[in-house]
Amino acid sequence: AFSSAPITATLFPGDGIGPEIAESVKQCGYIQIFREAEVPIEWEEHYVGTEIDPRTQSFLTWESLESVRRNRVGLKGPMATPIGKGHRSLNLTLRKELNLYANVRPCYSLPGYKTRYDDVNLVTIRENTEGEYSGLEHQVVRGVVESLKIITRQASLRVAEYAFHYAKAHGRERVSAIHKANIMQKTDGLFLKCCREVAEKYPEITYEEVVIDNCCMMLVKNPALFDVLVMPNLYGDIISDLCAGLIGGLGLTPSCNIGEGGIALAEAVHGSAPDIAGKNLANPTALLLSGVSMLRHLELHDKADRIQKAVLETIAEGKYRTADLGGSSTTSDFTRAICDHL
Amino acid sequence: AFSSAPITATLFPGDGIGPEIAESVKQCGYIQIFREAEVPIEWEEHYVGTEIDPRTQSFLTWESLESVRRNRVGLKGPMATPIGKGHRSLNLTLRKELNLYANVRPCYSLPGYKTRYDDVNLVTIRENTEGEYSGLEHQVVRGVVESLKIITRQASLRVAEYAFHYAKAHGRERVSAIHKANIMQKTDGLFLKCCREVAEKYPEITYEEVVIDNCCMMLVKNPALFDVLVMPNLYGDIISDLCAGLIGGLGLTPSCNIGEGGIALAEAVHGSAPDIAGKNLANPTALLLSGVSMLRHLELHDKADRIQKAVLETIAEGKYRTADLGGSSTTSDFTRAICDHL
Ligand SMILES: CC(C)[C@H](C(=O)O)[C@@H](O)C(=O)O
Ligand SMILES: CC(C)[C@H](C(=O)O)[C@@H](O)C(=O)O
Repeated sequence: AFSSAPITATLFPGDGIGPEIAESVKQCGYIQIFREAEVPIEWEEHYVGTEIDPRTQSFLTWESLESVRRNRVGLKGPMATPIGKGHRSLNLTLRKELNLYANVRPCYSLPGYKTRYDDVNLVTIRENTEGEYSGLEHQVVRGVVESLKIITRQASLRVAEYAFHYAKAHGRERVSAIHKANIMQKTDGLFLKCCREVAEKYPEITYEEVVIDNCCMMLVKNPALFDVLVMPNLYGDIISDLCAGLIGGLGLTPSCNIGEGGIALAEAVHGSAPDIAGKNLANPTALLLSGVSMLRHLELHDKADRIQKAVLETIAEGKYRTADLGGSSTTSDFTRAICDHL
Repeated sequence: AFSSAPITATLFPGDGIGPEIAESVKQCGYIQIFREAEVPIEWEEHYVGTEIDPRTQSFLTWESLESVRRNRVGLKGPMATPIGKGHRSLNLTLRKELNLYANVRPCYSLPGYKTRYDDVNLVTIRENTEGEYSGLEHQVVRGVVESLKIITRQASLRVAEYAFHYAKAHGRERVSAIHKANIMQKTDGLFLKCCREVAEKYPEITYEEVVIDNCCMMLVKNPALFDVLVMPNLYGDIISDLCAGLIGGLGLTPSCNIGEGGIALAEAVHGSAPDIAGKNLANPTALLLSGVSMLRHLELHDKADRIQKAVLETIAEGKYRTADLGGSSTTSDFTRAICDHL
């Protein structure tokens, strides 16, 4: 029935509300629209999550990783990161194992969904493999501990290249490198040096450097000042959440992790919300829009546009909204409304 | 003429616009009001700044440090921190030399000065001596650099104690410890452990822990959720600027550094704005309100209230505002207007 060969994509529904919102993606986003558009996606579903899967006795199997490596594209739901439980976050493990070096989060004001800001239209690009996330920590003596922040030329160049490439490909005009090189002269200094080197190859893109504290102040005062932001890992973690807050929260913002050799694992970055899991109350928007990011990565822009439009229209219309957006719709009603807009 | 012995306070006017705004403080805030109120302050002025002082051939003399140590209270203007010039920030040097372990920044919406937020009323308390500001950085091999984040039990307990003490003394109800212990389990984990220990001694104060990325998102969505925030150095740097942005910027927010043995060095934390230096255009509000923080530290609350009221009334009235607040007043007109409100 399909005129082109099907694209297989990995799906990790994840923890908590993950399975429900993944269901919504499958129902609405892809199966239907892709059939219509004759661009089929076949989902290869794997369990990855914080509970041990009774079938595999594992929370992350080698097969799950291989699936992404083979398919080169995937979509993941939320996975809980327990604080201080002694084992490493699954989100992080996936990033490291798959060498997902750039985390890309477009963030724009949603028409019809009112927040204090209506002029946000930016993209944060976060180095995703090193920096403060090295995992290297030691007790020096009793009562004195240290964490190592590692910055490498290789990873910094790679993410800077990606940021400028992205800016150019998406018709964006400015790249801001965010840093604290006035304090961390060596690590953030190296990061900036790499950004500058790459910036020279893109004379058509304006390049600037902004200290992170000042950046946060400017973002809350006037987010329209920013276009594409590129930064080390922790700053990216902080600033991408701040930006999500400007437009309504992590329930609304897509995210996509880019790996070597064109791998893309799109991801809803909100929590797994165990309190509402299984109640058909979760908002699937972030996962749906992350799916859109995945389509864009596959350069299926027409299809991406169409789904994105349907999601945004449904939210703008305001008739069907989940509780986190002040409405009282169930996940399935909201999903159906989106399908109707397609 | 004074009924009580004069209080001597150190004054570091600082770089750029520093001398002008310090002049404004001297004119308005203290000389006049203190005379009237019979609480005299005698300023002991020292040059500290990024230019070498021709008189002393130094940018920071031992006498300047001794002055704060002797007087126990001081006020400082902005000092520039050149990026990547190889020498350490003067702001940092003062913090380390004087062991100023807590940086306290009250941040509240100013009546009559409109921003996107009108419900901010919080205080950030930042550990000020260690963490990401250790200054320990190395090149591991070519292209690989590391910075060490150091967290100690001693400094964490000390700042946590200060935060709870402050909350209690100021009738605040909640202390939120901000961290990233899901990633930096050892360093931020130790910080949290210390906060928890102290929290137990203050059962009347609600204690919670918030991950920094989530905190930033909540702050921009609903800052009224927060009361007192305590956190490691870099998070404090970032979050205090973010909060300043919510209410209009660093030109409006006071800051006070607390040291061992009751030392307090209040400080305007905005930049030295060399572009407008010497032009009588700078906004002295942050330095004036920092002076107010200094008075509060001296427990001179009546006097502090009076000056604070005059500053806020002048801004609310809106007739005299400096350019950064959208007005066209000079520093001296604005200062005069405040004096008239006293
Ligand atoms: C859950 C946590 C480990 C993760 C991070 O810190 O990167 C999350 O905040 C994110 O942004 O994806
Ligand atoms: C100028 C800089 C060194 C300083 C800091 O990072 O602490 C500043 O941002 C501040 O908050 O006082």
